[in-house]
Amino acid sequence: MPPTPDLETIRWEGGLPGHLSLIDQTRLPTVLRRIDCLDVESVWEAINMLRVRGAPAIGISAAYGVCVGVQNFVDAGPPKFAQRLAYVVEYLASSRPTAVNLFWALNRMQACAVAVSHRPPRAQLEVLLEEARAIHDEDRKICHAIGRHGATLVSDGQSVLTHCNAGGLATAEYGTALSVFFTAQDAGKSLHVFVDETRPLLQGARLTAWELTQRGIDTTLICDSMAAQVMKEGRVQAVVTGADRIAANGDSANKIGTYGVAVLADAHDIPFYIAAPKSTFDLSISTGAKIPIEQRSPEEITHSFGRQTAPARVAVYNPAFDVTPAKLIRAIITEYGIIEPVTCERIRHVLGG
Amino acid sequence: MPPTPDLETIRWEGGLPGHLSLIDQTRLPTVLRRIDCLDVESVWEAINMLRVRGAPAIGISAAYGVCVGVQNFVDAGPPKFAQRLAYVVEYLASSRPTAVNLFWALNRMQACAVAVSHRPPRAQLEVLLEEARAIHDEDRKICHAIGRHGATLVSDGQSVLTHCNAGGLATAEYGTALSVFFTAQDAGKSLHVFVDETRPLLQGARLTAWELTQRGIDTTLICDSMAAQVMKEGRVQAVVTGADRIAANGDSANKIGTYGVAVLADAHDIPFYIAAPKSTFDLSISTGAKIPIEQRSPEEITHSFGRQTAPARVAVYNPAFDVTPAKLIRAIITEYGIIEPVTCERIRHVLGG
Repeated sequence: MPPTPDLETIRWEGGLPGHLSLIDQTRLPTVLRRIDCLDVESVWEAINMLRVRGAPAIGISAAYGVCVGVQNFVDAGPPKFAQRLAYVVEYLASSRPTAVNLFWALNRMQACAVAVSHRPPRAQLEVLLEEARAIHDEDRKICHAIGRHGATLVSDGQSVLTHCNAGGLATAEYGTALSVFFTAQDAGKSLHVFVDETRPLLQGARLTAWELTQRGIDTTLICDSMAAQVMKEGRVQAVVTGADRIAANGDSANKIGTYGVAVLADAHDIPFYIAAPKSTFDLSISTGAKIPIEQRSPEEITHSFGRQTAPARVAVYNPAFDVTPAKLIRAIITEYGIIEPVTCERIRHVLGG
Repeated sequence: MPPTPDLETIRWEGGLPGHLSLIDQTRLPTVLRRIDCLDVESVWEAINMLRVRGAPAIGISAAYGVCVGVQNFVDAGPPKFAQRLAYVVEYLASSRPTAVNLFWALNRMQACAVAVSHRPPRAQLEVLLEEARAIHDEDRKICHAIGRHGATLVSDGQSVLTHCNAGGLATAEYGTALSVFFTAQDAGKSLHVFVDETRPLLQGARLTAWELTQRGIDTTLICDSMAAQVMKEGRVQAVVTGADRIAANGDSANKIGTYGVAVLADAHDIPFYIAAPKSTFDLSISTGAKIPIEQRSPEEITHSFGRQTAPARVAVYNPAFDVTPAKLIRAIITEYGIIEPVTCERIRHVLGG
């Protein structure tokens, strides 16, 4: 089922000249508002202010952002066009200094421009827009491939649980974990999804619950602390989450709380699945113990939603993610197929490396 | 260590006439404000609006509330005094219709008045105030006894984790679970306490973190979803929580999230303790399966802190508590001693029933 236009996280509007249209994720779930980025400054602001978030979505936006930034310089002559391109790439790279996909996409756009630098600026711009569309389209295909493989793991009438947001808002379209649900639905399977609200930033409540209900999936929101009870009552037959980084042995870093959900699933004999593209694997890291745990601001916990809800002097521990050991993961769903059991050998075999 | 006057949850001010002084718990943790209940209407309002909460604390407040309500009628003659007393008891009973301790305390006050009804009103009032003080004092002693027994289970330098608020704010003074920590501190043990914020109503962040920091205990606030990671990192050597109702076999109902914490503790080989007075045991219920799970309002999850944080159409599952099976509980700490192992026989033996 293709999304209705308003549910597209990222869209290029018009031909050339054109502009970048984004869902403003900071307004969700109460307001569905699109923003039109007509100049490179507004693309930078959208990435910087998390109006668009999720590694793949940031990369795609930056690629289109290059086109937005150089399209008014096609008549300025080749030297000025090249100069502008270099400026735009450097400028966009400063929008989210730690987002790996941002640099990857900008490097790819720059390499593309270098390859066609002998052609007139207008022709270069056309190739750049094609490249941005290719980055966008590749991510869409990866999400759909993950969904196709993952949908074989869930049955009609089942209830599943997910944590955080691994959906279309973080990617080109269907997402990773949520792509499993959307693809199963497209195949005629009726699923019910429990969504952990995902403290402290509530990506589950704000984004995942929104995506699922927008696409007509039967959704029930719970607090993170309720997952155990939901499992105990026999209401969940599988857990599917995304991942931020997967080590060579399958240990998977994901949003804080994922590890706890995996332990609970194990205690209740419920299969726990990770859905992630090949680009999430970091085979240079042997185990999850090598993945550093980022600490975030105490205010995310003590001043939720703009209101102080904890005493001023209290210390806070706020790790942004945790690592689920491979032994708790029944399978990892990738665009190349399902990795099961989760072992070094099986990972290399399925990913073809 | 006796609390400084301002940390007393409940206090009778003056002799006779006097008034009830309470910490307004709705203002915590940002404002420590006491309220003076000079008439029975303000006692009713304080209970009804949750300015004082926790079953024992409600009972104690209602007992003093009876004194506040009748003290101006000692010169009106015995019939009018008796009439006023009946009215005050009935009126206060309507403040929180489901609070068992409220009715228990009011019945006890009424029975006390009946026993001395042949004496002049002023003498009756003196006896009633003595009875209220006795209810208050008994609860204080129960909390301290729980603390003394429980403190033997924790060692100097250990880190412990607690969930929700089983502290002095819910009781006469030291609480149940928190009494273990306060008593250990009084005995010279240095403890570090991790506090689950306890969604959806944040009793951990708002009340427990406040109580612990006020009494100088080294405290770290976490989201409920972080408990697993804290355990995995070896940062916690024991878990202690309170309970709302304990079945004859030791299955324990407590704030939602407690069961998940118990499963996680078990998976990490960390002892999980419940601290609760004899009055929390319901030996007429054979197992936890007989305890009904109350469902609460969806808005507690979707509109936290006055702001909408989830899509309007999403369904919500919001159980108020869960049941931890006895097999996951290493011991139950009561005022009569430590119940270990948690079995029907051992419970009856320790509680003397």
